[in-house]
Amino acid sequence: MNALGRHILAEVYGCDSRILDDVEMIEDIMVQAAIATGAEVREVAFHKFNPQGVSGVVVISESHLTIHTWPELGYAAVDVFTCGDHVNPWDGVNYIARMLKAENMTATEVKRGVFEKPVKVANF
Amino acid sequence: MNALGRHILAEVYGCDSRILDDVEMIEDIMVQAAIATGAEVREVAFHKFNPQGVSGVVVISESHLTIHTWPELGYAAVDVFTCGDHVNPWDGVNYIARMLKAENMTATEVKRGVFEKPVKVANF
Repeated sequence: MNALGRHILAEVYGCDSRILDDVEMIEDIMVQAAIATGAEVREVAFHKFNPQGVSGVVVISESHLTIHTWPELGYAAVDVFTCGDHVNPWDGVNYIARMLKAENMTATEVKRGVFEKPVKVANF
Repeated sequence: MNALGRHILAEVYGCDSRILDDVEMIEDIMVQAAIATGAEVREVAFHKFNPQGVSGVVVISESHLTIHTWPELGYAAVDVFTCGDHVNPWDGVNYIARMLKAENMTATEVKRGVFEKPVKVANF
């Protein structure tokens, strides 16, 4: 491989606002999304904002998943960044969009850690 | 505004490998970077990998900062995602690159949460 990772940036629109404002549901969705990619969960950190909105991250052995929600707009900014060949970040993104009951999503994949020559690294 | 956030994706090369493998230094750099952007720190989660490498996130009121390091390649994948007008994500990215003693960096800014009409949200 000549890229270490695949990073999906997803704009998720038309979501269920009650889900977007429920920190426990969002944390559960993000952890399950990590597992759906085939990743190993290492750390989680979620925060509920006042008056509304949730931010959170799941650190995985293969990089991370993050979410920031705006319930008042039905919108979530979702990132799924994975390294290695045994995981598929799109499985996580699609799971999250489905669980948020999204009407629309635009998502872009960005390669991270691109080297001219194939690289062999310690963790994979 | 018609975008909720600014997300910098930075590929940071030629870093000091000892710093990249020191989870306490990396955590300190990332928290100080958050403060350098003018952000408010909410949660932190860092993890040291065996045999090498560090992953970590700082959740801020204004979104997040993340890092994944490959000491054996002198490389770090850094993200700084901020919302609102009172913070500048580039201040965080530049601080991190300087503290990692990076020789090279390529970075891209992506707008997140783009709406056709200007949006007014609860938190800003």
